[in-house]
Amino acid sequence: MDRRSFLRKGALGGAAAAASSALAAPAIAQETPTVTWRMTSSFPKSLDTIYGAAETMANYVKGMTDGKFNIQVFAAGEIVPGLQAMDSVSNGTVEACHTASYYYWGKDPTFAFATAVPFGLNMRMQNAWFYYGGGNDLMNEFYANYGITAFPCGNTGAQMGGWFRKEINTPEDLKGIKMRIGGFGGKVVEKLGVVPQQIAGGDIYPSLEKGTIDATEWVGPYDDEKLGFYKVAPYYYYPGWWEGGACLHAMFNKNAYEQLPEAYKVALQAATQAANSDMMASYDYKNPTALKKLLGQGAQLRPFSQDILEACFNAANEVYDEINSSNEAFKKIYDSQFSFRNDAYGWWQLSEFNFDYFMMRQQAAGNLKI
Amino acid sequence: MDRRSFLRKGALGGAAAAASSALAAPAIAQETPTVTWRMTSSFPKSLDTIYGAAETMANYVKGMTDGKFNIQVFAAGEIVPGLQAMDSVSNGTVEACHTASYYYWGKDPTFAFATAVPFGLNMRMQNAWFYYGGGNDLMNEFYANYGITAFPCGNTGAQMGGWFRKEINTPEDLKGIKMRIGGFGGKVVEKLGVVPQQIAGGDIYPSLEKGTIDATEWVGPYDDEKLGFYKVAPYYYYPGWWEGGACLHAMFNKNAYEQLPEAYKVALQAATQAANSDMMASYDYKNPTALKKLLGQGAQLRPFSQDILEACFNAANEVYDEINSSNEAFKKIYDSQFSFRNDAYGWWQLSEFNFDYFMMRQQAAGNLKI
Repeated sequence: MDRRSFLRKGALGGAAAAASSALAAPAIAQETPTVTWRMTSSFPKSLDTIYGAAETMANYVKGMTDGKFNIQVFAAGEIVPGLQAMDSVSNGTVEACHTASYYYWGKDPTFAFATAVPFGLNMRMQNAWFYYGGGNDLMNEFYANYGITAFPCGNTGAQMGGWFRKEINTPEDLKGIKMRIGGFGGKVVEKLGVVPQQIAGGDIYPSLEKGTIDATEWVGPYDDEKLGFYKVAPYYYYPGWWEGGACLHAMFNKNAYEQLPEAYKVALQAATQAANSDMMASYDYKNPTALKKLLGQGAQLRPFSQDILEACFNAANEVYDEINSSNEAFKKIYDSQFSFRNDAYGWWQLSEFNFDYFMMRQQAAGNLKI
Repeated sequence: MDRRSFLRKGALGGAAAAASSALAAPAIAQETPTVTWRMTSSFPKSLDTIYGAAETMANYVKGMTDGKFNIQVFAAGEIVPGLQAMDSVSNGTVEACHTASYYYWGKDPTFAFATAVPFGLNMRMQNAWFYYGGGNDLMNEFYANYGITAFPCGNTGAQMGGWFRKEINTPEDLKGIKMRIGGFGGKVVEKLGVVPQQIAGGDIYPSLEKGTIDATEWVGPYDDEKLGFYKVAPYYYYPGWWEGGACLHAMFNKNAYEQLPEAYKVALQAATQAANSDMMASYDYKNPTALKKLLGQGAQLRPFSQDILEACFNAANEVYDEINSSNEAFKKIYDSQFSFRNDAYGWWQLSEFNFDYFMMRQQAAGNLKI
């Protein structure tokens, strides 16, 4: 209940009202205002893990404020279309959205750093950069131009490279491939002759089936399995080098955020950081089972060859050079994120990589038993 | 401020007090009690990243409750010694502690699953198991025997294997090595002829210097660098297979936790989950720089050979078989955690591993530039 309106409506007698306004009311008003916000998601409910991160966040905030700060989550299209989520926060239509910053790459490629860029950071490095490497402050400095304050709120981990109708063995095999791939990744593969396509989720399967496209990227086993791509494009490539740890964001209208009482700002910070980790845990729990299911259904796993990855890496570096030479905001964040990247992969190749490597060898050899 | 004591002290007039007790007071009392808890850490402030996770958690809780739920964090030894942290929560000396569950392995080896066990889960898998694989519920069912409710609250990631005075090339080289290594890891290497030693942090360096011990494990580059081991035991081995993703816990006295208002329970859940992720981000940001510093000081990196890892893996499986045959609580959690482990490493070897592998190859080749 809204304590301020309770007091305003005069439920207490005159003496009480006088005493309250002199002593207690300001404290109460400051501490426990009722705030109701709308958060529009860029995702349909069917992408339950990504969509769910917004609900996890909202439930935490509601629970820890005894229901006083209530963020109502709406699926893509219920208020505005998914790709207009940020604009609707920017212009104040809603107070909040849950989205992928790289969707707004067309406005300025700088947006992409907050989600994932080709050959960028893995999930843990992305968090390290955001929370300790100044990444979140740098992004918010940039988002301020759009009237936005944002926090990381979910991660998919390294995504799969997607589904192909035919095997792709060399960089030459990419030439002329019509692939559903958006944003930055699309820009990079275009240099290798791929024809990037923008197709909404529901239209991908028929396009693959008819041969209108030759390949598509989506997310990873848990989400991919539901769309049934293995039936019409059985070669399942990895890794998705254009998103090594794709981060979602909770974006808030900057004015609305700044007017919140301090406790509610902290609630949003803690709840987004918790939901950020929670979404990763959810995918990490669901993907292994989904992968086994996909393999049982006939999906054919294929790694991109090192030659293909190197050609893409070089193409990505060309794109970075081009943008860096003309976009100062981009260059500033590139320097911060990529100088950390370069050190981080030096450390990663010791314990993390070798622990996983040994365990995967045992898994492949059938030595992991209970 | 404590609204209940404010009202009890009669700052409002008689009519107000009457109105409050009839209408407003119960709601206020329920919503905003002032709660002050003490949390004893198992760690000294010098382990700032681990110790800091408790402070991060407490600061979040304090901030989101407008200072009404105040958890005061004390370093190891200020209230009770570090290794008595859990006991002091169990017996109600303090309401909370921040500790590593595997420190209590001597009471029951089941405690170890919540932190890390040899050849177990990596950090992300540990979170997946806790939050989505039923791990947290299973552990709390077990902790209830000790009057404890606990949540993950920090992770170190895969730790290093430690510092050795001499190179260790084969499993035979481990025979007779006096190594500072505790708990479950010590039990496993004992089977290979290592003589495990229990030595407090501050005594490790002189023991290595005098040759009283031949090797020590600690954490990773950021913490290890501060203790200067590279000067007396320059061979820095990896990976620390006995802790592939060591998780810290916030433990609460079960009765105290259950008496909290619902909003404060949610505050603890969100704040611990946020701090859990935050500590990992902190290490992931600090370790790459610390590693470069250590290498500049003369530390010699050495991977444990696959032969050594396999010998340790087999020894670990013997220990698991021994405990499983006599400890039902252990077996129950082993089955849950390890059946997930066995699937999880199947999925991990696709995009996560191959993305990192390609990036590390580029790093090693000097191709990562800004």
